[in-house]
Amino acid sequence: MGFDGAMRAAIAEAERIKGTTYPNPPVGAVVLDAAGDIVGRGATEPVGGAHAEVVALRAAGERARGGTAVVTLEPCNHHGRTPPCVDALLAAGISTVVYAVADPNPVAADGAGRLAAAGVGTVPGVLADEVAAGSLREWLHKLRTGRPHVTWKVAGSIDGRSAAADGTSQWITSPQARADVHLRRAAADAVIVGTGTVFADDPALTARTSDGALYDRQPLRVVVGLREIGANYKVRNADSPTELLRTRDPAEVLRALGDRTDLFLESGPALASAFLRAGYVDRILAYVAPILIGGPNTIVDAVGVDTLAQAPRWRYDGVDRVGPDVLLSLVPA
Amino acid sequence: MGFDGAMRAAIAEAERIKGTTYPNPPVGAVVLDAAGDIVGRGATEPVGGAHAEVVALRAAGERARGGTAVVTLEPCNHHGRTPPCVDALLAAGISTVVYAVADPNPVAADGAGRLAAAGVGTVPGVLADEVAAGSLREWLHKLRTGRPHVTWKVAGSIDGRSAAADGTSQWITSPQARADVHLRRAAADAVIVGTGTVFADDPALTARTSDGALYDRQPLRVVVGLREIGANYKVRNADSPTELLRTRDPAEVLRALGDRTDLFLESGPALASAFLRAGYVDRILAYVAPILIGGPNTIVDAVGVDTLAQAPRWRYDGVDRVGPDVLLSLVPA
Ligand SMILES: NC(=O)c1ccc[n+]([C@@H]2O[C@H](COP(=O)([O-])OP(=O)(O)OC[C@H]3O[C@@H](n4cnc5c(N)ncnc54)[C@H](OP(=O)(O)O)[C@@H]3O)[C@@H](O)[C@H]2O)c1
Ligand SMILES: NC(=O)c1ccc[n+]([C@@H]2O[C@H](COP(=O)([O-])OP(=O)(O)OC[C@H]3O[C@@H](n4cnc5c(N)ncnc54)[C@H](OP(=O)(O)O)[C@@H]3O)[C@@H](O)[C@H]2O)c1
Repeated sequence: MGFDGAMRAAIAEAERIKGTTYPNPPVGAVVLDAAGDIVGRGATEPVGGAHAEVVALRAAGERARGGTAVVTLEPCNHHGRTPPCVDALLAAGISTVVYAVADPNPVAADGAGRLAAAGVGTVPGVLADEVAAGSLREWLHKLRTGRPHVTWKVAGSIDGRSAAADGTSQWITSPQARADVHLRRAAADAVIVGTGTVFADDPALTARTSDGALYDRQPLRVVVGLREIGANYKVRNADSPTELLRTRDPAEVLRALGDRTDLFLESGPALASAFLRAGYVDRILAYVAPILIGGPNTIVDAVGVDTLAQAPRWRYDGVDRVGPDVLLSLVPA
Repeated sequence: MGFDGAMRAAIAEAERIKGTTYPNPPVGAVVLDAAGDIVGRGATEPVGGAHAEVVALRAAGERARGGTAVVTLEPCNHHGRTPPCVDALLAAGISTVVYAVADPNPVAADGAGRLAAAGVGTVPGVLADEVAAGSLREWLHKLRTGRPHVTWKVAGSIDGRSAAADGTSQWITSPQARADVHLRRAAADAVIVGTGTVFADDPALTARTSDGALYDRQPLRVVVGLREIGANYKVRNADSPTELLRTRDPAEVLRALGDRTDLFLESGPALASAFLRAGYVDRILAYVAPILIGGPNTIVDAVGVDTLAQAPRWRYDGVDRVGPDVLLSLVPA
């Protein structure tokens, strides 16, 4: 329990850089000196850069000696693009390593074993559930399933409509909800829509601050569908790369984006329902505005449920207010 | 501010008896002795019985002298079925009267003025918003509009469906959500459905504990629609009175139930949508289960919104978890 506070600091480091580490996991670390004070913080650098532990050790310098490293993921023990983190921890004279999630990657694994063999104390599992459900969720999902993790974002009314009968739909939800979406775009590896959304709304699909400035990091933009998207559509501007996937098969979309980890599906009902029917939605983020709309424009059409007992069960892993709206976050039960 | 704690105790008294005081308002009161300790509690008795202040004064006895009465509604100053509460407060030697909401009823009014004229200190407005939005909401609504207050309860999926394509719908939401509904039925003056719900589900519409026992108090059961309801339907059993209203006009429903205050609309989409289109829904309670259903069975059909800008605005006045479900409570914005 004593390490929870330090682990929370490490988690904060990881959250800060989520979306910038692909294909590496977004890991956070802090180093405590022998007195227990935080003397270094770090997070995974973009590909080719240092791992979180190494960044935190550099910041700590000599104060790391005899201290404790607190990391969201078990330190790696293999030569990839960078030398093993275990070597760096041993060289720095760290006496205890605390981590949240064990590294399930067989190539990187048994960092803890090598540390223990070298006489370093190891404390596994600190806030492991929180990290596994949070900053490492998408990366762990991909290791486990071989598929990128798909978050489906939808904005609707309390009666599950995404547009009025005449098709008016923009800004059902509030500026605060939209700002939240843009932050999440900035942390995703790709944002996906169907051609229908491009033709209906001409969205830029970039990640922007509330005054319209582009965030430093932009996700890949992906449009799925057979129809041609003319160069005049905003999604084809120069603000971020765009891929046009000429298919209607969600499995093919996942294959085409198979080197990514964290996909953000922002399509309309047609493509979202296809992903749901295929079982390829791993998290739902539903922004629910305090209105009733009625009529034909539902947020999903057929999701493959004929009788109630068939409906896949989800569970709420977050229920939050975002301005005047509510954000329901769901994961498979 | 010093009276907040005592007012919360008075509010708790009022909540306890909500639904049993018709046609009187559900009021709660506590009496503090001269030292500030609670020496009596009370709430409005069923019609013909005592008002809250009188019950609390009786409980306090001689300890009320020189003390403070804390009441959710301004004490009445008129002879109705019972003598004015102001007389009882003066006779008991109360030196200060604290209340939340001023009595908007012209017949009962200026209890505070008469108390002040008799040398009693009065402190109005303590937790007034909380009481006006809570235990006295329905009664105040009726005084203001002349109409009973309508709470529409609906159970659905996050995509706004109330049944699967094959019509299966019972127990979309959890036992905890159903228990919450039964508690609210017990506090309502009437529970309303359309004939469609009776034919589809044959609900008893009584208020029951989780092991099926009837609560002491049962609401009037009301079925709206032109079709005949045979005596074999549960809604016609002997557990509580039932009114069959042969109409499809929500205004006529409100007129027929015009002597009631707190109506609980538990119909399906047809009658609920008619109430919504007529502007007769004063609160929405949406129990949202963590599932997606898709398909044709939406919780409302047309609610009179053709274009988004037309949609009436609501606001969340409560967002709570109830077991595995979420309860969204909305009032007009
Ligand atoms: N509320 C929200 O969160 C939200 C988000 C996005 C959009 N919208 C609204 O949704 C509406 C557009 O809806 P939409 O359903 O047309 O958008 P969509 O799902 O983004 O695009 C649908 C198009 O995608 C293509 N597609 C690719 N794979 C498909 C598959 N497996 N099944 C069906 N179609 C597939 C089809 O076009 P091809 O013929 O080119 O193959 C189809 O017409 C707009 O009004 C927009 O404002 C709402
Ligand atoms: N999810 C939930 O919270 C919930 C709650 C209740 C019911 N349900 C489900 O809803 C389904 C039944 O739906 P429903 O819409 O038929 O139920 P409903 O609204 O309770 O009843 C509809 C019937 O009410 C009568 N009616 C009275 N005034 C009306 C008006 N202004 N407009 C239209 N009809 C009016 C009509 O019957 P006449 O021809 O007799 O006039 C109509 O067929 C069932 O599957 C049930 O399980 C769900």
